[in-house]
Amino acid sequence: MIGFLSDFGHADPYVGICHGVMARFAPDARVVDICHEVPRGDVRTGAAMLAQAVPYLPDGVYLAVVDPGVGTSRRGVVISAGHSLFVGPDNGLLLWAVNALGGPDEAYEITNHHLMITPVSYTFHGRDVFSPVAARLATGTPATAVGPRIAPDELVGLPDPVVHVDVDELDAEVIGIDRYGNLQTAATATQLRSALGVRASGDPMLVGAVKASYGHTFGSVALGEVVVFEDSAGLVAIAVNGGDARALLRAEAGSLIRLRSG
Amino acid sequence: MIGFLSDFGHADPYVGICHGVMARFAPDARVVDICHEVPRGDVRTGAAMLAQAVPYLPDGVYLAVVDPGVGTSRRGVVISAGHSLFVGPDNGLLLWAVNALGGPDEAYEITNHHLMITPVSYTFHGRDVFSPVAARLATGTPATAVGPRIAPDELVGLPDPVVHVDVDELDAEVIGIDRYGNLQTAATATQLRSALGVRASGDPMLVGAVKASYGHTFGSVALGEVVVFEDSAGLVAIAVNGGDARALLRAEAGSLIRLRSG
Amino acid sequence: MIGFLSDFGHADPYVGICHGVMARFAPDARVVDICHEVPRGDVRTGAAMLAQAVPYLPDGVYLAVVDPGVGTSRRGVVISAGHSLFVGPDNGLLLWAVNALGGPDEAYEITNHHLMITPVSYTFHGRDVFSPVAARLATGTPATAVGPRIAPDELVGLPDPVVHVDVDELDAEVIGIDRYGNLQTAATATQLRSALGVRASGDPMLVGAVKASYGHTFGSVALGEVVVFEDSAGLVAIAVNGGDARALLRAEAGSLIRLRSG
Repeated sequence: MIGFLSDFGHADPYVGICHGVMARFAPDARVVDICHEVPRGDVRTGAAMLAQAVPYLPDGVYLAVVDPGVGTSRRGVVISAGHSLFVGPDNGLLLWAVNALGGPDEAYEITNHHLMITPVSYTFHGRDVFSPVAARLATGTPATAVGPRIAPDELVGLPDPVVHVDVDELDAEVIGIDRYGNLQTAATATQLRSALGVRASGDPMLVGAVKASYGHTFGSVALGEVVVFEDSAGLVAIAVNGGDARALLRAEAGSLIRLRSG
Repeated sequence: MIGFLSDFGHADPYVGICHGVMARFAPDARVVDICHEVPRGDVRTGAAMLAQAVPYLPDGVYLAVVDPGVGTSRRGVVISAGHSLFVGPDNGLLLWAVNALGGPDEAYEITNHHLMITPVSYTFHGRDVFSPVAARLATGTPATAVGPRIAPDELVGLPDPVVHVDVDELDAEVIGIDRYGNLQTAATATQLRSALGVRASGDPMLVGAVKASYGHTFGSVALGEVVVFEDSAGLVAIAVNGGDARALLRAEAGSLIRLRSG
Repeated sequence: MIGFLSDFGHADPYVGICHGVMARFAPDARVVDICHEVPRGDVRTGAAMLAQAVPYLPDGVYLAVVDPGVGTSRRGVVISAGHSLFVGPDNGLLLWAVNALGGPDEAYEITNHHLMITPVSYTFHGRDVFSPVAARLATGTPATAVGPRIAPDELVGLPDPVVHVDVDELDAEVIGIDRYGNLQTAATATQLRSALGVRASGDPMLVGAVKASYGHTFGSVALGEVVVFEDSAGLVAIAVNGGDARALLRAEAGSLIRLRSG
């Protein structure tokens, strides 16, 4: 199994070309598309999506390409964690998922040109470097073959998402916004309880200055009302039943949301 | 084969996570994505798409998730029809496709937690309930294992699409609108003939108050003109050659379209 | 392997239905989706995408459907090139990819109804003709079985993309625009050198009347600046670092871009 995430979108043949390269070098591997609509160059959102998906996929190889630094001196890396291997740019994209599997065991810089499609282009390492390496790892090439070992603590990281737990107040960064405009924050349900006490379904809350209720799901509140709930990733999320929380709260990925008792 | 339809869209990792769950529990199953851009929560459009696809796919398991009631008391069900099994919420989504295969043979409520990913989230039964159940059915788990049998006539249905055949007049509900703005109605070519007599290519018609011609395909009329034709599903459809019938006729899914001789 | 490209988009079940047909007739074939967001009816852009993808995919069968003439008298064809077979409408869509593999060896008109889903609809030959033929070719049916041989020079072609190499001036047609608004032209890096001499990274250029620099990749210029570079297909491309060259230069597929020394 190769799990594949990128910001290539579906309007271009880039995802298909990477699939084709993997089909050449690993004809029997099953490729699972995790998401290819990561916002362009948004490493942080890509990292959050990958971390959210990995616990539900089989052990295997993960190929992730959100790579605004392609063609510059940023490294390509392979990281082992649990029984899986992660392949992609060394820009923090892989680390939250790696941590979701217990943290990095080993890391390697990709330097072995024999595993790449050469000449390597400046702008499409997904095709020339990461896809062939992922495919070869999936067919048994050991990670040690890709290049020199590097210390996991030398890997480029991302700042942790902001979560401030205070007395009767929780500030949390928006780390994901789905198709429906639902906001996913970095705060866990445990952190919410620690700030605001145990919430029962229907308890009033404030999201910024907007009235909301705690609930289990969208349908816990009336149409058009705001619900704060534990989402399917175990994180505190905010939705408008039948509506769009992003628009209502004018939030974007990276926004801070303040939750209080209502 | 597992055929998979949802309203998850491609902007989020939800489709990929369900694929991952199926890859865990049914590593050898081939998953065919039917469509994931069903409009959000639009059970009726999802039901129409699924019914249109199923006759062309192999026998197998169908997983369909358009589920505005997730987390409420609506049931999850497995329905057998022909040589196929349908898995999804009991909200009518599955029934038109089931009927396309001859109607329900047996139905079961999904209650067996051993087949689910636990703890089951409130908002993502696609991941926690329906995907693992579909995967297990695909690998030979019998439908009887998912939970108690229920009578097929207790399944939640959807109102039939509206079609009124009258003298020289046909009213038909729009049940689908494709990427090109072509309108698919619920009326069959037989119903059109019954209302308006046999149509030859080029015969004038009226769509509401708009002039149109009967034809075989988009190219049967000049650029910008309206054509009424039997579409690839055997249903009466309306298109503008090189244009957008939805915009021209201000139609949406659920709109009633009146067809008359012109 | 079956590589599949179309203009069906993802909002409808058309791509999924074709996958289902292929799963019926070729249960063991691996289908690689190259792209399904070719602009509606844009044969030229579809041809350019297919030609760009094919060199990176394994030998196999290619199914391509961008078919504004569906239901008219245009032919369906199978073309052999290298170790691959191309299936689609005879409207030029396949030929640039065929030429990328060395040009057509043999060509056949698809007339054998035993290989189709009958009755063949007027508007969805992707489902009724091309998918079942592609699947059968993938499982060993010889191309000679689809219908009569036709001379490769009778195949419908597309005008070559415009490239004019002049003294210190290069005019090139835009043949592709990606998700990021990057413009891909039909000119090769060799043609650029022939017109403007060898370019070093940082050399000033003019794109129309807009100042630009030659570079290796987006990051070769400052944010918001225009870079001319050799893209991953070996073609001259134009991008705005962190921006949208299509919008800045008001270009579309088919536009002519003039490059000069700056």
